[in-house]
Amino acid sequence: MNYTFADRMQGMESSAIRELLKVAQDPEVIAFSAGNPAPESFPIHEMAEISASIFQEQGAKALQYGISEGYPELRRLSEERLKNRYGIGRDFDQLIIVSGGQQGMELSTKILTNEGDTVICENPSFIGSMNAFRSYGLKLRGVEMDEEGILPEALEAIAASDPKVRFLYTIPTFQNPSGRTMTLERRKAVLEIAKKYDFLIVEDNPYGDLRYEGEDVAPIKSLDEEGRVIYVGSYSKVLAPGIRMGFVSAHKDLIAKMVIAKQVSDVHTNQFFMILAAEYLKRYNLDDHVQEVRKLYKHKLDLMAGAIREHFPAEVIFHKPQGGLFLWCSLPEGYDALELCRRSGEAKVSIVPGRVFEIDAKLVSGTFRMNFSTPSEEAIQRGVKILGGVIRKYLDECRPL
Amino acid sequence: MNYTFADRMQGMESSAIRELLKVAQDPEVIAFSAGNPAPESFPIHEMAEISASIFQEQGAKALQYGISEGYPELRRLSEERLKNRYGIGRDFDQLIIVSGGQQGMELSTKILTNEGDTVICENPSFIGSMNAFRSYGLKLRGVEMDEEGILPEALEAIAASDPKVRFLYTIPTFQNPSGRTMTLERRKAVLEIAKKYDFLIVEDNPYGDLRYEGEDVAPIKSLDEEGRVIYVGSYSKVLAPGIRMGFVSAHKDLIAKMVIAKQVSDVHTNQFFMILAAEYLKRYNLDDHVQEVRKLYKHKLDLMAGAIREHFPAEVIFHKPQGGLFLWCSLPEGYDALELCRRSGEAKVSIVPGRVFEIDAKLVSGTFRMNFSTPSEEAIQRGVKILGGVIRKYLDECRPL
Repeated sequence: MNYTFADRMQGMESSAIRELLKVAQDPEVIAFSAGNPAPESFPIHEMAEISASIFQEQGAKALQYGISEGYPELRRLSEERLKNRYGIGRDFDQLIIVSGGQQGMELSTKILTNEGDTVICENPSFIGSMNAFRSYGLKLRGVEMDEEGILPEALEAIAASDPKVRFLYTIPTFQNPSGRTMTLERRKAVLEIAKKYDFLIVEDNPYGDLRYEGEDVAPIKSLDEEGRVIYVGSYSKVLAPGIRMGFVSAHKDLIAKMVIAKQVSDVHTNQFFMILAAEYLKRYNLDDHVQEVRKLYKHKLDLMAGAIREHFPAEVIFHKPQGGLFLWCSLPEGYDALELCRRSGEAKVSIVPGRVFEIDAKLVSGTFRMNFSTPSEEAIQRGVKILGGVIRKYLDECRPL
Repeated sequence: MNYTFADRMQGMESSAIRELLKVAQDPEVIAFSAGNPAPESFPIHEMAEISASIFQEQGAKALQYGISEGYPELRRLSEERLKNRYGIGRDFDQLIIVSGGQQGMELSTKILTNEGDTVICENPSFIGSMNAFRSYGLKLRGVEMDEEGILPEALEAIAASDPKVRFLYTIPTFQNPSGRTMTLERRKAVLEIAKKYDFLIVEDNPYGDLRYEGEDVAPIKSLDEEGRVIYVGSYSKVLAPGIRMGFVSAHKDLIAKMVIAKQVSDVHTNQFFMILAAEYLKRYNLDDHVQEVRKLYKHKLDLMAGAIREHFPAEVIFHKPQGGLFLWCSLPEGYDALELCRRSGEAKVSIVPGRVFEIDAKLVSGTFRMNFSTPSEEAIQRGVKILGGVIRKYLDECRPL
């Protein structure tokens, strides 16, 4: 049969790039292309203990239908931590548990936008979120950044020229893919522009806890006095991603609509793991665990950054981030990271070409993303060395485009 | 702040009814309004054992990101059972694991429909699915049924008059809320009409395993030789609902699109429980467990049907279904089940007025739905007796509208 698909499904695939990334599935390949947390960071032992006690003490409840808002105790504990850790949560705010941060973006889009509306994204931005926006027929407009985050004048230019802007999507802290953190000044400026042009902000903060040096910068949501910011958080990077557990904190009117949208999407998040996560937060200090995770990742980041300095040609620019999971590199002007990605795949090292994260993925770009949380220490050292050789060869053999 | 919500969010709430159903949250209320599986049917002990062994043997894998298609072993075992149990699965078919059957409806809608398209639903139908369709701006058209299921001439009349029909949504076996099962002849007729007018069929079969008497009727999907039927299955009623685990079997071109849509929705279903469900299917014979569940529910159904015969006035019509979770009753012509529902709530027994399940919920209707899987035996007997008294009083006091 031939099927006619929804218009919204167009442009959600970038098959050339998908094919390219398949190389990472080869177990012989050193994967710098992933974004997975390190498996050694999962509190497996603690979770196993809690799991056993849930089955013993409240198995039937944990396996039964729950409510779309999420398990009340997990909501309460998540709000408590948001308040203590980030100063988030005013009287008008509520919190819904979602099946991973990704669902927070999906639900925000679903309740707020009509087809043809505009969402502003940092350029480059996270492909999963961009595809969620595309899947609702939105127009994506990329806003330029520098090392301090979104350029306020660039944001204002878009907002002033496009009355259909519904929200700005931003990952202000350790942005994926660029690793950048927006300064407090810029955050304030961005919030002011949102007020002036009356659009909302969806603040995605999956990496906020993964800071290895420097000082925390206040989330935009903590500055929000009127309910303009939807804050999406995740337990994927501090507990484990396979359990698909995140949350959204926003004005109660927004959360009420999200609850309705979630009800028709998956009814509610896995009840057993909502209880498990709540129990974890009660029995353990998540921040102690986060300290351990930070140590692990700081070590891997230092290792990768050191190896890059040793093995990459000096023409390759990279900024070591203060946290997160990714290193963002740039080839000299005129070289194409897609070609580098092909070549490195042949040498059994996978990276992600930056154009995957560009609003317009057709443009040639010399940027590429490297992940340091997933590979082992040995793989980091060996892989960066191989990659350095591939880059040198590419720069030697080819003139810039 | 005042928010402007997406057009699609209109008409997804029926707040009067929501308020009415809140009575069921009162622990003193006997809830015949739910649709929850009986907690005593969950294989808690077996799941606890499997859970412990997963944490011990493959904890890191079970807590890590997985693929959007679902855990391969669970896909394979689900396909195997579909084939053996229902004769479903041709060469062109594939299977995706979803976070409960509800997500199967959501993804089907997302990949197939544009705003303003039409979906045909049995009238009455399952409110969760209808709201999923509404949430994509679809027009719902209800097709009439009798005790043998959808009336083919009614279906053809709609299809012939509306070129925007994208699919028919049907629960052919132990339909929610009516409890009806479509005959094989009708299933064949429905499939022929779908071919003639070139629309797809989304076949939702959460209750297919819950047959307490009579013979199985072949799913429409098993008759589908060309990939016209999307089959949505669920582990909610045979394992447990809180784990949010279901699957969709459909032509591989459809599944490929669903994988993309799922990626932006929740990335993948809870990895730990996908592995747990696969292990359950490997270690145990699900059909043995289903036999136990059937025994439990048959007993509760018999009990409720007997109590209704004893306590309800003879004017109340009900058909005892051969399976599923629900009994469907009708007050005499001119009486309103919404009013009955209010009165029974005051008497601490909750039922669901039929109009909740009608395409046009504003129409007065004397139908109401009763669930027998959730309440205890004692609650069934006591609740039906109370309800019988409330009905008698309502019929005595009030003339028909």
